[in-house]
Amino acid sequence: MDKRFPLTTAFAEAIVTCEPLKNEAAVQAARTAIIDWLACAFGGAQDRTTRILLETLPAGSGNAVIIGQERRTDALTAALVNGHAGHVLDYDDVHSSVRGHPTTVVVPALLALASDIKISAERLIAGYIVGLETMARLGLSLGMKHYENGFHATATLGTIGAAAAVAHVLRYSLEETAVALGLAATHSSGLRLQFGHDAKPYHAGMAARAGLISARLAKAGLGGASDFLDNPIGFFSAFAFGEEHPRAAIESWGSPWQIVSPGLTLKAFPCCTASHPVAMIGLQLHQEGLRADTIDFVTFTFPPGGDAALVVTNPTAGIDARFSAEYVFAAALIDGALRIDHFGERPVREDVMAIARRIRRRHDETAPRLSNDPKTRFVIADVRLADGERLTRDFKGLPGLNDPTGKFRDATGDHPAVSAVPELVRTMLSEDDLYRFLNVLGQRLT
Amino acid sequence: MDKRFPLTTAFAEAIVTCEPLKNEAAVQAARTAIIDWLACAFGGAQDRTTRILLETLPAGSGNAVIIGQERRTDALTAALVNGHAGHVLDYDDVHSSVRGHPTTVVVPALLALASDIKISAERLIAGYIVGLETMARLGLSLGMKHYENGFHATATLGTIGAAAAVAHVLRYSLEETAVALGLAATHSSGLRLQFGHDAKPYHAGMAARAGLISARLAKAGLGGASDFLDNPIGFFSAFAFGEEHPRAAIESWGSPWQIVSPGLTLKAFPCCTASHPVAMIGLQLHQEGLRADTIDFVTFTFPPGGDAALVVTNPTAGIDARFSAEYVFAAALIDGALRIDHFGERPVREDVMAIARRIRRRHDETAPRLSNDPKTRFVIADVRLADGERLTRDFKGLPGLNDPTGKFRDATGDHPAVSAVPELVRTMLSEDDLYRFLNVLGQRLT
Repeated sequence: MDKRFPLTTAFAEAIVTCEPLKNEAAVQAARTAIIDWLACAFGGAQDRTTRILLETLPAGSGNAVIIGQERRTDALTAALVNGHAGHVLDYDDVHSSVRGHPTTVVVPALLALASDIKISAERLIAGYIVGLETMARLGLSLGMKHYENGFHATATLGTIGAAAAVAHVLRYSLEETAVALGLAATHSSGLRLQFGHDAKPYHAGMAARAGLISARLAKAGLGGASDFLDNPIGFFSAFAFGEEHPRAAIESWGSPWQIVSPGLTLKAFPCCTASHPVAMIGLQLHQEGLRADTIDFVTFTFPPGGDAALVVTNPTAGIDARFSAEYVFAAALIDGALRIDHFGERPVREDVMAIARRIRRRHDETAPRLSNDPKTRFVIADVRLADGERLTRDFKGLPGLNDPTGKFRDATGDHPAVSAVPELVRTMLSEDDLYRFLNVLGQRLT
Repeated sequence: MDKRFPLTTAFAEAIVTCEPLKNEAAVQAARTAIIDWLACAFGGAQDRTTRILLETLPAGSGNAVIIGQERRTDALTAALVNGHAGHVLDYDDVHSSVRGHPTTVVVPALLALASDIKISAERLIAGYIVGLETMARLGLSLGMKHYENGFHATATLGTIGAAAAVAHVLRYSLEETAVALGLAATHSSGLRLQFGHDAKPYHAGMAARAGLISARLAKAGLGGASDFLDNPIGFFSAFAFGEEHPRAAIESWGSPWQIVSPGLTLKAFPCCTASHPVAMIGLQLHQEGLRADTIDFVTFTFPPGGDAALVVTNPTAGIDARFSAEYVFAAALIDGALRIDHFGERPVREDVMAIARRIRRRHDETAPRLSNDPKTRFVIADVRLADGERLTRDFKGLPGLNDPTGKFRDATGDHPAVSAVPELVRTMLSEDDLYRFLNVLGQRLT
């Protein structure tokens, strides 16, 4: 261990020497999450914005698969496009320690890597678990102000997680790993001001690309700082706003693995995670038979910071409505379901907006501020009916999906060309398995 | 003007509607700075790290010129490689409002743009003045903590400056410009922890590339926030650490142009700007005939923050010695000159280090902290000789170069293939002029 930089060195050592494949629960969680993420990526492959990226970026020559597209490209471009496509519906998993979306950054970087260098499916899975662990531990070490002051952790931490995943898979030396992490930190960007815009999912692609190029440049000998966590004007000074807990980056690494506990939340609805509790209450009230036209007004009570991601109150189209607690609740209440077509390009429906406009938000200032601890998340809906009656419903934590097989089937229209994907992901082990898997991903479904 | 986002809208309006070509002093300063920057870029074209980038990035197909290389590539890769090459010797200009290096980000982005789209040489010059103005005004608006807490302003502001330059040249609409700026802000990255490493010049390339792709994506219709300066969790919240002066982004735009006043400092020495005052004192003492072996010890007194960029005290090779006040002073004193070969790959000379190790730094805590105001910069060297005698020399502000023609000649070895470049830059106006100029840049000199 480099005594001058104890924390960065210990962090790099954890990344390269850990053995996540020994933990069966972690491997199973990873396989499940990859199936879930592929549902999102196939669902986003033909999105208007994915097409814009493919038309605007240099064409790129190479063998890297673009999910749901027949053409191939260079690894960096593939990482970017797949990262974006996997996040564009905002339907992909989230992790509370990250306070963001780890899979849609780490997995695209590794798929792109696998297009250039032969690796086994098991090593890809190991790299994914390590990349997620890296993002989660860094998230815990940064504290809450990083996100609250405007950084999009999916992107800022994802860049570093993707680089860590590559370093693990390719068995980098400690020095190469530390330099790769520092290069990733110096690429680390992404602002929450883009929430509700096309640029938000682009952040995931940007991070996947940046993590991969960081790892490659470190291996190629571009020199960089190997002390990003120790340097007094390094990662924490720039990004933590004085709230850092540096030791949290390495404490309890892999014990348990963050993919196991607190674990990922696989999204049941294609909209911002923070809106899922109000979605659950809306669906519950629909099942109870509440008619929308009987509502006078609704008040949501969140913990402080509990609706920070829900930056939209008055959406104009389905896309920004993903970030509106009001729209999500109203649509769930009226339709009894939240589908991909609730959150597409089309303008919002007037019947949904009529209810959404009757909703106000408040915060319970006596409750603990929303933190990485999922237990701090709750919402209370106080519904006043036109006849004066009052209903109160609450939801604590986040709802999630255990088995994404149905989600994959729905997102791919049960297309026969990819119907084998969930089973392939559940069983793949070898280099050949991964090669077959990559070939299946590069198929156009429409 | 969009009333919801007054500051971002006014900023975008300044960028697209201003007319820098009407100011002859600004145009002349721009032409001079481009010659100076090309000296640096030709000097860095064959650097080990430039080769690493060319070998590690996807080859890229396109017509974009790589300075000092015969092969061409796509515009994004060219922007990156040329931005890096122009900064790798740390010999390129600096600007006090930016607190960094504007030209090596903005000009490579514009050269790359010109490889794809026909523009005139005059418009390129206008775009450069606007890109620099953007970086400088944003630097003034951010305050000092952005840099002090660890961000590398060349990169973080350069990304936005490059996007602004493209928006000006291609006459984007206000909305397209605002979105391009927001996309650039969300790409904005680069940490000072990389000072003294190969990654530092890479930052300039990263920013040039990011600014160009931001502008292109905005034009292609990727939606993004158009309120980066107004959003309460936007640019200032993430990057200013509470020290922002938002109005400074637009106040006095172009009056005077920042390229005229305070103006660029063209570097007389190929090492970190902050070391130039001690270099001047070292050269002066050499001229005075002071022999190095008569020195007992030397004390440098800086204003608080005056040596923040000089992160190296005990360099091992010329590359990190660029950031050592001690090495720079010692080499200037002993050799009476500071040449590119003082700051190359080779290990530092023992005779230079013998003097460097006799130097200590202190800060005058009663002096104003180093700020964007060049008048706050000074250094006092207190030299104690072995015989007990004491010499005191000081230097205020930064030394600079007025005419970079000799620097260009030295950096290119007076190679006939490019000897016409300074005159071309001084006179180019039309599309044809720019086309000829680009062709001359793509020539290998070794």
